Amino acid sequence: MNLLQQTLANINPPDLHCQQLAQQRLNSLTKPLGSLGILEEIAWRLAGIQRLPLPKLPKEKISLVLAGDHGVVAEGVSAFPQEVTPQMVLNFLQGGAAINVLARQAGARVVIADFGMATPLPHQKHLMDCRVKAGTDNMAQGPAMSRQEAVQAIEAGITLVLQQAKDPLSLIGIGEMGIGNTTASTAILAAFSGLPVLELTGQGTGIVEERRQQKAAIIGRALAVNRPDATDPLDVLAKVGGLEIAGMVGIILGCAGAGTPVVIDGFISGAAALVAQSLAPLCREYMFASHLSQEPGHRIMLEMLGLKPILHLDMRLGEGTGAVLTFSFIEAASRIINEMATFAEAGVSQG
Amino acid sequence: MNLLQQTLANINPPDLHCQQLAQQRLNSLTKPLGSLGILEEIAWRLAGIQRLPLPKLPKEKISLVLAGDHGVVAEGVSAFPQEVTPQMVLNFLQGGAAINVLARQAGARVVIADFGMATPLPHQKHLMDCRVKAGTDNMAQGPAMSRQEAVQAIEAGITLVLQQAKDPLSLIGIGEMGIGNTTASTAILAAFSGLPVLELTGQGTGIVEERRQQKAAIIGRALAVNRPDATDPLDVLAKVGGLEIAGMVGIILGCAGAGTPVVIDGFISGAAALVAQSLAPLCREYMFASHLSQEPGHRIMLEMLGLKPILHLDMRLGEGTGAVLTFSFIEAASRIINEMATFAEAGVSQG
Repeated sequence: MNLLQQTLANINPPDLHCQQLAQQRLNSLTKPLGSLGILEEIAWRLAGIQRLPLPKLPKEKISLVLAGDHGVVAEGVSAFPQEVTPQMVLNFLQGGAAINVLARQAGARVVIADFGMATPLPHQKHLMDCRVKAGTDNMAQGPAMSRQEAVQAIEAGITLVLQQAKDPLSLIGIGEMGIGNTTASTAILAAFSGLPVLELTGQGTGIVEERRQQKAAIIGRALAVNRPDATDPLDVLAKVGGLEIAGMVGIILGCAGAGTPVVIDGFISGAAALVAQSLAPLCREYMFASHLSQEPGHRIMLEMLGLKPILHLDMRLGEGTGAVLTFSFIEAASRIINEMATFAEAGVSQG
Repeated sequence: MNLLQQTLANINPPDLHCQQLAQQRLNSLTKPLGSLGILEEIAWRLAGIQRLPLPKLPKEKISLVLAGDHGVVAEGVSAFPQEVTPQMVLNFLQGGAAINVLARQAGARVVIADFGMATPLPHQKHLMDCRVKAGTDNMAQGPAMSRQEAVQAIEAGITLVLQQAKDPLSLIGIGEMGIGNTTASTAILAAFSGLPVLELTGQGTGIVEERRQQKAAIIGRALAVNRPDATDPLDVLAKVGGLEIAGMVGIILGCAGAGTPVVIDGFISGAAALVAQSLAPLCREYMFASHLSQEPGHRIMLEMLGLKPILHLDMRLGEGTGAVLTFSFIEAASRIINEMATFAEAGVSQG
């Protein structure tokens, strides 16, 4: 068995008994029944994941940000040139990007990994080398990568989780940087959903309407040329995915295998979550949604994942920014169940 | 001039020049234009409020939680008995309620004030005495309070802001506790909006459908008996409002007068915001929305306020819980504009 197969075999359901005990305790706390809404759901889901009736605060919060390039940018799908991928990776390493700022606010550690930029950076001490190839091939002309390369990138993602989150009480957020990756993510969503590409295609980092239509046509061509098989998630990922997307699939599977909660970011990491869910439906139990992106396909994607976004900030940046903004809600939910008084303890009459 | 009139006279527009400078800086940062959505809006709004091109992090975060009772509970509008108001206030003072837990998570100080519980508690060292009367009168039979009492409660709210938030770089969140106060808030919303009461009436802390219809009928009766004048916000507040709601009106006006940002919580504090906005439309510039409550009227209320909720947590608890959960986004927005690198600084190509 390879690492991917081993990981898939390790994914177990969360502990239902701990979930039930957590729900009972939540119902005994000094508040109207269910009135903390999704915070309560996060608390009992966390109990099931951690296999503890009273979930613990995350020991370490980690934002894993994966970079990769996309051959399809040759078709003019993005508002930014490909050189921006390594430039932004340097910005991440220097602490000047949005993800760095928001991770500081959240008390989280940021880990940057290169899963295949077109041009590698000169050696950077704090950049994890998970390179599979120098960017994907142009999916409008053929498969973005081979099935073997997709598996290699997934396994690099699994390994990254095993290295970075040794304690299962870690909390992982995922994010990405890769010029052109809304194009690949839209293609993945179209392949799985069968919905019309034009409806699913957004403005990415900020293209005008005419270029959005061109982008949709290019995605349509990639699907026609490659004919990805929606019943074979590795086929979809290899043909119209991306290296950093495959890496995030690995991180989600790795978290699910290790029993570590993982917060999904926006549209690109959502595409990775769709692939991961298709490979192992149970891994959905370890995922938490964060924000609702302005990308039009994101709402559909989250419905397919059965996840409900809690932040409505009209963001469309990626990098894992929505995921780290969600960390404090996981902590808040854990504190609620541990620290609130019960009706009996506080001497409050029940309704 | 009384304190209310002085405060209304002190409310100025935010500094537009600082807003514009903040927007320019946001546009120069290493991210697609506008891609941080509402976080960017918070940042430039904060710049205007603080009258600084680069807004500062809040110096102190304070959650003001106001308690008051409602004579209308005699009509059977709530799932909980009136004794729960002082019981929950004791729970707040002991640190066991949801607002205490979430304030600890947010690094905020909680201040509890009695604006008129039906039965006062024996002296409590940390409970602020802002009592106007022993709960409102039953609005289904006559006015909840006199116009003079409403002004007194508003002025107590203003005074509380002046005492507790001496530094204008404070950040205030508002919240409340008062069995029966969704009934008063629904009546306020109905008076200002003219919409059918049944559509606006929700399940409060958890009543069944039959009681919800009875609650709507009682609100309808209160409006018929009192005929509040929607063009006279003090008339609406006095006739169908509440003491803690009036106190929150004072807090909002006090914050606007002092140039301090104030985060609105859910449905009850939203009703206070409607009254405050009617008294002084400019005070809206100092308000930030937090979550979208499960109360059906909340969405309409926020539209009337021109505020967009950022948290979708299906909460319906009050106490200021949604407001304190929003504090970290005000901080995040402030950090973004101060700490992110520009395209020029980071050497990143623009699109």
